[in-house]
Amino acid sequence: MADDKGLTSRADDFAAWYNEVVLRAELADYSPVRGCMVIRPYGYAIWENMQRALDDMFKATGHQNAYFPLLIPQSYIEREKEHVKGFAPEVAVVTYAGGKELEEPLVIRPTSETIIYDMFSKWVQSYRDLPLLINQWCNVVRWELRTRLFLRTTEFLWQEGHTAHATEQEAEAEALQMLGVYRTFMEDWMAMPPVTGRKTDSERFAGALRTYAVEALMQDNRALQAGTSHNLGQNFAKQFDLRFQSETGTEEYAWNTSWGVSTRLVGGLVMTHGDDSGIVAPPKLAPIQVVIVPIYRKDDERDTVLSKADEVAAMLRDRGLRPHIDRRDNLKPGAKYWEWERKGVPLRVEIGPRDVEQGHVMVVARVTPAGVPRKESVAEANVGQALADRLEAFQASLLAEARQRREDNSHRGITDFTMFREIIEGDGGFVYAGWCGGETCEERVKAETKATIRVLPDPEFRSPDAPVKCVVCVGPAQHEAVWARAY
Amino acid sequence: MADDKGLTSRADDFAAWYNEVVLRAELADYSPVRGCMVIRPYGYAIWENMQRALDDMFKATGHQNAYFPLLIPQSYIEREKEHVKGFAPEVAVVTYAGGKELEEPLVIRPTSETIIYDMFSKWVQSYRDLPLLINQWCNVVRWELRTRLFLRTTEFLWQEGHTAHATEQEAEAEALQMLGVYRTFMEDWMAMPPVTGRKTDSERFAGALRTYAVEALMQDNRALQAGTSHNLGQNFAKQFDLRFQSETGTEEYAWNTSWGVSTRLVGGLVMTHGDDSGIVAPPKLAPIQVVIVPIYRKDDERDTVLSKADEVAAMLRDRGLRPHIDRRDNLKPGAKYWEWERKGVPLRVEIGPRDVEQGHVMVVARVTPAGVPRKESVAEANVGQALADRLEAFQASLLAEARQRREDNSHRGITDFTMFREIIEGDGGFVYAGWCGGETCEERVKAETKATIRVLPDPEFRSPDAPVKCVVCVGPAQHEAVWARAY
Repeated sequence: MADDKGLTSRADDFAAWYNEVVLRAELADYSPVRGCMVIRPYGYAIWENMQRALDDMFKATGHQNAYFPLLIPQSYIEREKEHVKGFAPEVAVVTYAGGKELEEPLVIRPTSETIIYDMFSKWVQSYRDLPLLINQWCNVVRWELRTRLFLRTTEFLWQEGHTAHATEQEAEAEALQMLGVYRTFMEDWMAMPPVTGRKTDSERFAGALRTYAVEALMQDNRALQAGTSHNLGQNFAKQFDLRFQSETGTEEYAWNTSWGVSTRLVGGLVMTHGDDSGIVAPPKLAPIQVVIVPIYRKDDERDTVLSKADEVAAMLRDRGLRPHIDRRDNLKPGAKYWEWERKGVPLRVEIGPRDVEQGHVMVVARVTPAGVPRKESVAEANVGQALADRLEAFQASLLAEARQRREDNSHRGITDFTMFREIIEGDGGFVYAGWCGGETCEERVKAETKATIRVLPDPEFRSPDAPVKCVVCVGPAQHEAVWARAY
Repeated sequence: MADDKGLTSRADDFAAWYNEVVLRAELADYSPVRGCMVIRPYGYAIWENMQRALDDMFKATGHQNAYFPLLIPQSYIEREKEHVKGFAPEVAVVTYAGGKELEEPLVIRPTSETIIYDMFSKWVQSYRDLPLLINQWCNVVRWELRTRLFLRTTEFLWQEGHTAHATEQEAEAEALQMLGVYRTFMEDWMAMPPVTGRKTDSERFAGALRTYAVEALMQDNRALQAGTSHNLGQNFAKQFDLRFQSETGTEEYAWNTSWGVSTRLVGGLVMTHGDDSGIVAPPKLAPIQVVIVPIYRKDDERDTVLSKADEVAAMLRDRGLRPHIDRRDNLKPGAKYWEWERKGVPLRVEIGPRDVEQGHVMVVARVTPAGVPRKESVAEANVGQALADRLEAFQASLLAEARQRREDNSHRGITDFTMFREIIEGDGGFVYAGWCGGETCEERVKAETKATIRVLPDPEFRSPDAPVKCVVCVGPAQHEAVWARAY
C-alpha cells in the first residue's frame, strides 16, 4: 500500500479496494483499540459537511439539539425487555471508576432511548409540552466482532433523534417524516438514491413498534442500511413513566420515535461513487470542490502562475465555492493530480504560464458521464460561473448514474426460488419478490443465501404488478419484499 | 423551586443562585448518573454558538478537525509518568465488553494526548509533514468527587487541540497563539475578559513543560480557569515515538502542544453576567437575541398584532439577527417577560394594538448600564437597524462592565500577608502579589487561605511596579502572581 502503487481494482476485490481507498484517501485509519477507527481530517470534513446539512434539515423540521450522558445505569438498559435482548450482548461496561469498583455498573450508550425517555418523563407534564422534538449528535459504542472502517466500528459517531408525541398518529407521521428527510439528504447531498420501506419484525429495532429504513445499493450490489427511523409506540414511555395530562384531562402515556444515521454514511458515499482511481466526492459534500494546480518550471513563472491561482481561487470563493491551491513545491503536477483524484476532488484547475498569457484555465473533471470530455478550456473571466455550473452538473450526473445503476441491478417480478438464488449468488443486487409474511421463509432465505429482506418497500418503489405468491413457499404473498445481501 | 417563585439572590447564596438559574433557565438538568448532567436544548444552543465561533477561529489559524477513539488502552495512559499520576485516579475503566472480560482494560479518555500522539507517530515521517495542527470536539470523562452543573461534571464536552512541530520555538508560539485565541473568544463573544499567564509547576498539566491559562473572575470573586494551553515539549513524543526526519536529514522528536476549553464556559457565562432575575446572554452567543411578545385581548387584535410580529421578525432576520415570536396563548405577557428574562434574552419587543396603529414597537433591554433606560419606543420602519445597534451596544456594555468589575476586584501591590488573608477571606477577588517561586510558600497560602496562584500574569496584566518581596516569606520575589480562590 505504498503511495506509488495503484489501488486494487473494484472488479478484482471490492472489499480490498474499499479498505485501501479509505486509508489512502486519508479518510480514516486503524487505531490501537480493537474495532475503533480514527477519522482523519479529510474524512472528518466530509462528515462535518454531512452534519451541517442534516442539522439544518432537523432544525427546519422543528428539532432542537441537546446532550445526554454517555454512561447509562445497567438497570436502565434492562427495563425494556426487547431492548435489553437486542443490546445487552454488545455493550461495553464500566465497572471501575475513580479508583473504586462501582456499586452499579454503567454501560457506554449503544443508543440512548432509556436515558432520554427517563429525562423526558421529568420534563413532560401536559399535552402543552408535546411534541418534544430532540436530537443528539454523539458517539456510541457497540462491541462488534467483525468491524470495517466506517461501515461497522465498535465506536461510531451518529445523531439520534428522540421525540415524544400525544398520539400514535403524530408519532407515526414523525417517523415517516424523518425517513423522508434521510432520503432527501441521501439523494440531494450524497447522490445516493435509496429505497425506502418498512423492516420486517425480525429486523425491527429492539423495542420498536415499527422500523423504517433507507437502503442503498453499493457498487458490489450489496445493500447498505443507511438510516433507520422507529415508531417506538408506548414501549419506552411505559417503562420510564413518560406520561402527560391530555387536553381532556386524562393521564396518558406519550408516543415516541427515534431515528439515526451515522458515520457509516461516509462508507456509503465511498462505495456509491468511488472508482479504481479513488473516491469521488459529490460536490455538495466535498471538503475541496476545486483543486488548483499551478504548473511552472522557473521562478518567475512560479510567481505569475501562483498569483493567477490566487485570483481564480478568490473568484471561486466569491461564488461560495470551496477551492484549494496546491502550493507544494516538492511534488510534480502529475503526483498532485493523482493524489487529488484519489481524494475525489470534483474539479481540477490547471494553470500554466501559457494559460495565463491566453487568459484561460484548463478544467478537468474527476469523472464525467460517458461521452462527455473530462478536460475543457475555460475563459478566465468566466471561471466562477463556469465552475459553479460544472459542479452542479457533476452532482446531478452522480445521482443520475447511481440511480441508473440501482435500477439496472434491481430484479423485479422474480417468482422462482431457483432464479432468486441464482441472482443473489451471482451478481447480486436488489431482488423484488413476493413474501408470505412468515418468519420461516425469511429465515430459510437468510440461511441458504445470506440475503435478508431489506425492506417491504414504500408504494413508490413497488413493482407495477404486485406479486401473488411467496417466492419461497409459493403460498399467498402478503407483501412485496426487497431482498439483498447486506453490509 | 416551583416556577412561580423568585430565584435565591446572589447576595444571599451565590452557589444556590447558580444552581437554580441553570436549572430554571433550562440550561441543564441533573441526570440519574452520578456527576453527569443533561444539557438541555437552550443550554446546548449556547454551546453550539460557542463551538461555531471557536471552530471558525481554529480553522482560520490552520487547524483541522478529526476524531480519535473514546477508549484508550490502560497501558497508554501509563506511559508518560507525570500524566498517569495526574489522571489515573480519576479515570472510568471498561473491564467488560461484548459479554466478556477484556484482556486489557480500556479507560474512557480523560484527555487524548496518548492516543493522538500515537497516531501522529504513524502519520509524521518528515519535516514536510509538520506542523500537524489537529482539533477534536468530543466528550471526556473524569471521575470527580464533587460536581457542579457545567463547572465540574464527570462527563463534559470540550475541544482538545493537539499539534506537532519541528521546533520548540514553533510549539511555544502555537501554545501562546491558542491562548490568545481563547482570550479573544472570551472577550469578543462571551464578554468575559480573562487574565492570561503561565501556571506554576504545581498547577501544570500532567505531562506538560509549561501550561498557560485564561482565568476569569466570577461575580462571587472566585476565579474560573476557563481554558488552558500547554507546551508539552517532547515528553509525549518520546513516549509515543513521534519522530521526524529534519531538513538536514537528522532524526528528531517532534514538539507538541495541546489546548482545550469545555462546556464549563457556559457556567462562566452564567456567573459573569447573570443577575437575580436570571442569566444574561451576550447577544453574539444568545440562541434568541430578540423575543417578540404580542399583546392583545380580542381575537381581531390577535391577528393584527401577530401579523405585525411576523413582519418585525422578518426585518430582524433580514439583518442576520435571531428573533423569536412567543405565540403561546396560554400565558399572559407578564409571565412571558419573566420567563425570557430568566433565560437572558438581550432584547424584548412588545407589540400591542396601539403600537401597530402608531407604527412603533416597545423595546426593552434585559439589562442596561446605570442611567440608561431599559425601555424605549422604536419606529417600526427603523426596527432592523435600531435593534442591530442596540445588540451591539449591549454586547459592548457587558464586556465593559465585566472588565470594570474585574478591575474593581483586583487588588494590586499587596505586600503584607495579613492584608492578603483579609482580602482573600473577605470579599475575595484577584490578589496580585510577589512570590519567591517556592512551593513551600505556594502550599502555605493554599493550606491557610484556600487561595491558589491562578497565573503568573502575562506582561500586559502585571502591575506597573514589579513586587520586590514574596508576600509570604518576604524573600526576594521571582514573579508577580495572581492569587484567588477558584472553582
